[in-house]
Amino acid sequence: MNIAIRLAYDGTAYHGWQRQKSETTVQQTLENAVSRLYKRDIPVIGCGRTDAGVHAERYCANFRAEGGIPLDRLPLALNALLPQDISVFAAAEVEEDFHAVFSCLRKEYTYRVYNSNVRDPFLNGRALFYPEKTDLGAMRLAAERFKGTHDFAAVRSVGTNVKTTVRTVYDFEISRSGDMFGFRICANGFLYNMARAMVGTVLYAGIGKLRPEDITDILDSRDRRLAGPTVPPHGLYMTGVWYRGKAEVLFPPAEAAGKAGGEIS
Amino acid sequence: MNIAIRLAYDGTAYHGWQRQKSETTVQQTLENAVSRLYKRDIPVIGCGRTDAGVHAERYCANFRAEGGIPLDRLPLALNALLPQDISVFAAAEVEEDFHAVFSCLRKEYTYRVYNSNVRDPFLNGRALFYPEKTDLGAMRLAAERFKGTHDFAAVRSVGTNVKTTVRTVYDFEISRSGDMFGFRICANGFLYNMARAMVGTVLYAGIGKLRPEDITDILDSRDRRLAGPTVPPHGLYMTGVWYRGKAEVLFPPAEAAGKAGGEIS
Repeated sequence: MNIAIRLAYDGTAYHGWQRQKSETTVQQTLENAVSRLYKRDIPVIGCGRTDAGVHAERYCANFRAEGGIPLDRLPLALNALLPQDISVFAAAEVEEDFHAVFSCLRKEYTYRVYNSNVRDPFLNGRALFYPEKTDLGAMRLAAERFKGTHDFAAVRSVGTNVKTTVRTVYDFEISRSGDMFGFRICANGFLYNMARAMVGTVLYAGIGKLRPEDITDILDSRDRRLAGPTVPPHGLYMTGVWYRGKAEVLFPPAEAAGKAGGEIS
Repeated sequence: MNIAIRLAYDGTAYHGWQRQKSETTVQQTLENAVSRLYKRDIPVIGCGRTDAGVHAERYCANFRAEGGIPLDRLPLALNALLPQDISVFAAAEVEEDFHAVFSCLRKEYTYRVYNSNVRDPFLNGRALFYPEKTDLGAMRLAAERFKGTHDFAAVRSVGTNVKTTVRTVYDFEISRSGDMFGFRICANGFLYNMARAMVGTVLYAGIGKLRPEDITDILDSRDRRLAGPTVPPHGLYMTGVWYRGKAEVLFPPAEAAGKAGGEIS
């Protein structure tokens, strides 16, 4: 049976999602829990390789298992075996060919920036503290330029081999609540560090280090050096993931974002 | 010059406020920063001895120092020397006899409870995860019974010597936002573990382990064994502190609570 689960995690204590030889990762921690529960080694596939310190409010993983655990009891059974910073919310049987990465239609990341003079101790590891004065209008114009289908080579870090650096950004929206900014990016896929470099570039537009209209030229150049910096991982959250078919019930669109730390004040 | 500061801290990494021989505490960390800034050893007085894991959104400390640092620049100068989980927001010169503990008129603690079936990984260390079904109406009736001037011996842990166990609770209010409950207690003083034992007792009323009207008898008994359990420290936040005179400007009542992690979603 192919089982998909919806989970969330605070990435602070982990060296990212993906299994590593010596460091603790979310994948490994989850595989340990799943394997203990089913009493045999079970590999778990995750919908994205989040970096060290990156968080997930909505994340999808899948694994194959048979056995008598009713799927509605699986979340609590797994949570009993998981540390406090990882939670499983729901589980469903999915199509035999479902794969958390390859079946994924689109993903959403939200980057949180605390734009204030004085840092907030409760946002340590949860949002980027950014004391510079920012122009929200300029940032919104800059974000607009990233929307659509482009070659995103100028805003990715080299590191993984990909067939193409062309992606489609469906949405790039900046919301504000007091001193907190949320940069929400929805795309059919993300290159390595793409979300963080896009946010760094938009922040540069916000402090006048580049003009919103420069972004079109930056994308055309395919030159990473022309875009803004890659902002640190701890402000980044995976906040949405979309599937067709049976996995869709795990990610009801109405609930999207907002919950589970979605509104950090 | 007697200087008072308003600060906030995430208590997760600290063994409470008070200086200890071997463990890292908030007081010691703050004294190190103040002493480095003024280039001599300066003791710092804090408004309350919060336990290990307890947080503070609004906290007052005072110390004596002379020297050329303008008070409006003091917060940023101290923050540059402090770790990310402690922040100083404001500083003011106060009366020569001002003392963060003895001048304090009243204090407010807020205890946060996440009352849901599934834990939220982002509330780990920030709120008590409490999956039991609770009756908010019963909890509010129970809280009401604690208000006023009583002998609170039944809801304190023995540990510190106090002249009297009589205190006045001005307010005990339970707010709810989705699955998050905030238990806000305002009093002229708190005995050791008093806030946490009061919340544990009110939660017992919420799950039917005692009746709201039992609380009057429990207080009369002065018997700690009759009240509910002392809930764990990580849900507790110091959220308010009141002074007369020059320190009052540091704690404008309008802003009270709400900010700096005040609304954890």
